[in-house]
Amino acid sequence: MDEFSLIERIAARTAARADIMLGIGDDCALLAPPAGQVLAVTADTLNAGVHFPLETPAFDIGWKTLAVNLSDLAAMGARPAWCTLALSLPDSDPVWLEAFADGLFALADAAGITLVGGDTTRGPLSLSVTAMGWVPATQALRRDGACAGDQVWVSGVPGEAALALALWQQGRLDVAAEQADPLLETLRQRLLRPSPRNALGLALRGIASAAIDVSDGLGADLGHVCQRSGLAAQLQLAALPVSPALARFAAGEQAWPLQTGGGDDYELCFSAPAAAHDRVLAAAASAGVAVHCIGRLQAGQGVHWQDPAGRPWLPPRRGYDHFASA
Amino acid sequence: MDEFSLIERIAARTAARADIMLGIGDDCALLAPPAGQVLAVTADTLNAGVHFPLETPAFDIGWKTLAVNLSDLAAMGARPAWCTLALSLPDSDPVWLEAFADGLFALADAAGITLVGGDTTRGPLSLSVTAMGWVPATQALRRDGACAGDQVWVSGVPGEAALALALWQQGRLDVAAEQADPLLETLRQRLLRPSPRNALGLALRGIASAAIDVSDGLGADLGHVCQRSGLAAQLQLAALPVSPALARFAAGEQAWPLQTGGGDDYELCFSAPAAAHDRVLAAAASAGVAVHCIGRLQAGQGVHWQDPAGRPWLPPRRGYDHFASA
Repeated sequence: MDEFSLIERIAARTAARADIMLGIGDDCALLAPPAGQVLAVTADTLNAGVHFPLETPAFDIGWKTLAVNLSDLAAMGARPAWCTLALSLPDSDPVWLEAFADGLFALADAAGITLVGGDTTRGPLSLSVTAMGWVPATQALRRDGACAGDQVWVSGVPGEAALALALWQQGRLDVAAEQADPLLETLRQRLLRPSPRNALGLALRGIASAAIDVSDGLGADLGHVCQRSGLAAQLQLAALPVSPALARFAAGEQAWPLQTGGGDDYELCFSAPAAAHDRVLAAAASAGVAVHCIGRLQAGQGVHWQDPAGRPWLPPRRGYDHFASA
Repeated sequence: MDEFSLIERIAARTAARADIMLGIGDDCALLAPPAGQVLAVTADTLNAGVHFPLETPAFDIGWKTLAVNLSDLAAMGARPAWCTLALSLPDSDPVWLEAFADGLFALADAAGITLVGGDTTRGPLSLSVTAMGWVPATQALRRDGACAGDQVWVSGVPGEAALALALWQQGRLDVAAEQADPLLETLRQRLLRPSPRNALGLALRGIASAAIDVSDGLGADLGHVCQRSGLAAQLQLAALPVSPALARFAAGEQAWPLQTGGGDDYELCFSAPAAAHDRVLAAAASAGVAVHCIGRLQAGQGVHWQDPAGRPWLPPRRGYDHFASA
């Protein structure tokens, strides 16, 4: 399979959109912007062995490559439109590529985003997506919009992806174990097929004051909102949601480092005025996602946790940093 | 240097644009589209050891990473606006990064394109850019717009980049040799710091009927225009420009494979009605780029070359294919 067959194979699977005047196959794609909105653009890369274990199934790699970028559009409240894919492959294995495309397009079609260009090259397995979407300028969920007194919310169950990775690294997340235990299968999906919260991001337009997606750990990511908004966060460990999987494999205090510092959840952490409490719950219900209020913002700086007894609690380590030497 | 210092270092060097509402530092950049135009999007990757020799200076890698993407915007007649960069680095060497950024921003500032986002990850050296620009829908230089009877043009001197690569691989393009011989220095620049033809692409709006950039070899790239426009190309080898460097290192017939099949030139190959001949020359003059009429398009298919005696000439091999097994 040469480069052009590869491109044709991928191009043939892209969904149509009325705003695509010219898709894959020319020097550029040509795309018609909607009226009265601004373009939201984000780019994220996954490298084999760094961002996912080498033995990750191709379907899941395809899914996750797009999911991490859709998650950034969700965190901005932008409606997904188009994306490009830079795909570096060590060889051109049609079976691998088919499964990768199955995963990528399963999520692309569900999210309403269409691949409009990219590049396939020979090299170590690496996947870079640039995703584009649209949002009315005044409704974008920026990091710098939070106010003192706002409540802090998080969607889903932060910590499950990190728990899944830990179990995988301990050899406890293989196919045989999953078949015997649906809880393990659920966990594995949380790590390998995260559900970007685009419906929630859209529903929070005009309600949330700031938002970020949880990719490096809840505390670290919320820290960016605090820093950009010039505020401190006071958070309650007891308010963090606990799923059956967390309760079983990391009960009580054991779960705190996962919940506050585990990466790869791709949930949304956002702030909203206390007066909007019920509107937040209604928005989450309309998006079909559970959300929990975990604390509030106030003057100051940093992210501060309280344990169930009201004592300060310091997380054992910071979020994941690809270039940290420690 | 951790990931966040890396990002801050890069973000600090980006040029301002009035249409950037929010640049690097949030989940997405927020960008205001101009009225009445369509978004042109392209993505290209360079991998170390595949798309450039491992010993390529960091400045040149930065320059070329952006140049190959600007070249695609040029070939669509789109005005450059914004780009994202996915940067995978084996380590975080500040000296290397500074030189890389020098090269990237030297060209970005000259071309008026601003970096608005991206991702830095640990991995084998790989650089993926997605570039965005704007063009009035009816003036985009698509590949499928050529007509029978149109003249075929090419900018610059195709073949020089391939000549430079061949000399480099023979060890004849080192620094000492270049200092002794300005012709070698010129050749090296042609390979490592290609000048994307954005001014020419803009000047050809409303004049050219179709365009493509020459990255895989003149014949192979023009073949895509022929295929998309449903036409054949009849080209004259004698009409191809010959530079002093080509004349010295690949005289006469020796140059033909380089001129017709050499990659990496990032010149524009385009078609225009014969009646627009003088307007093409005026557009090229306004853009400060030499162009040559090398043949014409007619009914049929494929790209056909004639030697100076009027006999058919078959190129020895096709353009570069990253996944070809031969």
